[in-house]
Amino acid sequence: MAITVVGSVAFDSIETPEGRRDRCLGGAATYFSLAASFFTDVRVIAVVGEDFGAAEEAVFKARKIDTRGIERAAGKSFFWEGSYLDNLNEAKTHTTDLNVFAAFEPKIPEAYRDSEFLFLANIDPVLQRRVREAMPGVKLVAGDTINYWIKDHRPALLEVLKGLDILLINDTETRMLAGHSNLVQAARGVLALGPRALVVKHGEYGATLFHSTAQKGKSREFRAPAMPLEVVVDPTGAGDSFAGGFFGYLAAQPEQTPAAFRRAMFYGSVMGSFAVERFGTERLQKLTREEIDARFLQFRELTHLD
Amino acid sequence: MAITVVGSVAFDSIETPEGRRDRCLGGAATYFSLAASFFTDVRVIAVVGEDFGAAEEAVFKARKIDTRGIERAAGKSFFWEGSYLDNLNEAKTHTTDLNVFAAFEPKIPEAYRDSEFLFLANIDPVLQRRVREAMPGVKLVAGDTINYWIKDHRPALLEVLKGLDILLINDTETRMLAGHSNLVQAARGVLALGPRALVVKHGEYGATLFHSTAQKGKSREFRAPAMPLEVVVDPTGAGDSFAGGFFGYLAAQPEQTPAAFRRAMFYGSVMGSFAVERFGTERLQKLTREEIDARFLQFRELTHLD
Repeated sequence: MAITVVGSVAFDSIETPEGRRDRCLGGAATYFSLAASFFTDVRVIAVVGEDFGAAEEAVFKARKIDTRGIERAAGKSFFWEGSYLDNLNEAKTHTTDLNVFAAFEPKIPEAYRDSEFLFLANIDPVLQRRVREAMPGVKLVAGDTINYWIKDHRPALLEVLKGLDILLINDTETRMLAGHSNLVQAARGVLALGPRALVVKHGEYGATLFHSTAQKGKSREFRAPAMPLEVVVDPTGAGDSFAGGFFGYLAAQPEQTPAAFRRAMFYGSVMGSFAVERFGTERLQKLTREEIDARFLQFRELTHLD
Repeated sequence: MAITVVGSVAFDSIETPEGRRDRCLGGAATYFSLAASFFTDVRVIAVVGEDFGAAEEAVFKARKIDTRGIERAAGKSFFWEGSYLDNLNEAKTHTTDLNVFAAFEPKIPEAYRDSEFLFLANIDPVLQRRVREAMPGVKLVAGDTINYWIKDHRPALLEVLKGLDILLINDTETRMLAGHSNLVQAARGVLALGPRALVVKHGEYGATLFHSTAQKGKSREFRAPAMPLEVVVDPTGAGDSFAGGFFGYLAAQPEQTPAAFRRAMFYGSVMGSFAVERFGTERLQKLTREEIDARFLQFRELTHLD
């Protein structure tokens, strides 16, 4: 089943202990689309500037991602510059130039309207809500957000949460959103705001799925580890790649059962683990489905008793 | 098979957001013994002062722990006072009075000499080594240490590591001991120092087992989650309780196979999760084997796909 994703397509300049890349293709919608494209059809809604050329377009096309919803505007694309020199778990932002993204008005192509799955990547919650309302027929809606919106745009964000099935955020964001330092109580608080499932991403420690209702014979929570990696080249996009693997796998299933959610958590971790092995989207661009399935088995080995 | 453990038996005054307890029974060897006693016979080597009375002795006796190696010395027992008011993951130490522990000379009772398993809880590595050398016939030796010994007593600690089969430490200690910020590379560095297995404890995120050699058809690493707990009353002793569950389970198995190590990781997490539910050793004192096995199944549910 097709996923429509709305979010940023950007250029990133990134410095890590492993080196530096200037103006590589990035943005939440880019990482998400590439990761999800290994599981299902993906359609992107974004805005780019005149610096987005054939080379960038080709990255999407190579993965058969529908780019009809990527609007070309006069000016430059969203640009982010950051480094992870002291701490691989937290980016230090040097530059954020919104450029054409500042006036982004998501437009949904007619051809996207039959999408059954919708992913609202991290953008202004006002826009997330607008896209959500413009696609009332979707079967499952997932979304992401960051500290900035939680702190300073709370009312708009709360409206978005009411329309979400699944929210994917990190530990700090969960605690901040619920105003509780205990993660389980914070998760419960977030679930009370609307989503029926919450995926809390723990960075190098994996992620936990919290359900708003206990499922028959199954625990309310499910923990997927992250892969212990010898080299993390560039953490940028790990969370968006997790979301792409998670939601892409779910969208490809005939039914979104509790068992499917569990496997989706593993596929999320798998895609996140690949993303960080190279700069930007380099690894996702070269990836094969065989490598994905092999790593899925490694995750099983890593966590299962027998 | 019997485990001999050498380490501290102490009194702790603890303050957490959930309240305060004064002079409750604590110490690494206490938590370890109580946790391990649910799986196998445990024998303690420690020193206490005149303040260690019948009530404290009874806590060990109730779990059939051999206390003949707990020496009574003139003076007061080791006393620690600390709080976790800002951060449940890190204790703030207010007082450390070594008291009788300052002159501790471990003496091994004759009756302990046939122990096949030895646990060197966190104490001066000079003493750890002495006990290790005094029990050359043991089958498996595990141990713990902390930042202080890694930083300021490295040569003595390195001697201990050469005689260890399994080292249990946390993320920070692993990175510090190996001098590497990447956890996988740090773990490999630690394994090169002697132990053939390393358990890295991640606090609320669980623990990872690293093996020095790949096992046929099995990954080198195994990750056990921690239980997502709604209330953490007192984190004191969580790591020692993990070690007790882990090593206690291993010692109870006819063979320490890779599969046994995996289950041991789960039992470690189970015991750690119980320890933090009440102040000090309160929860471990009241625990039953049925509760332990029920939680083991919860851990399986939390992590297994099917």
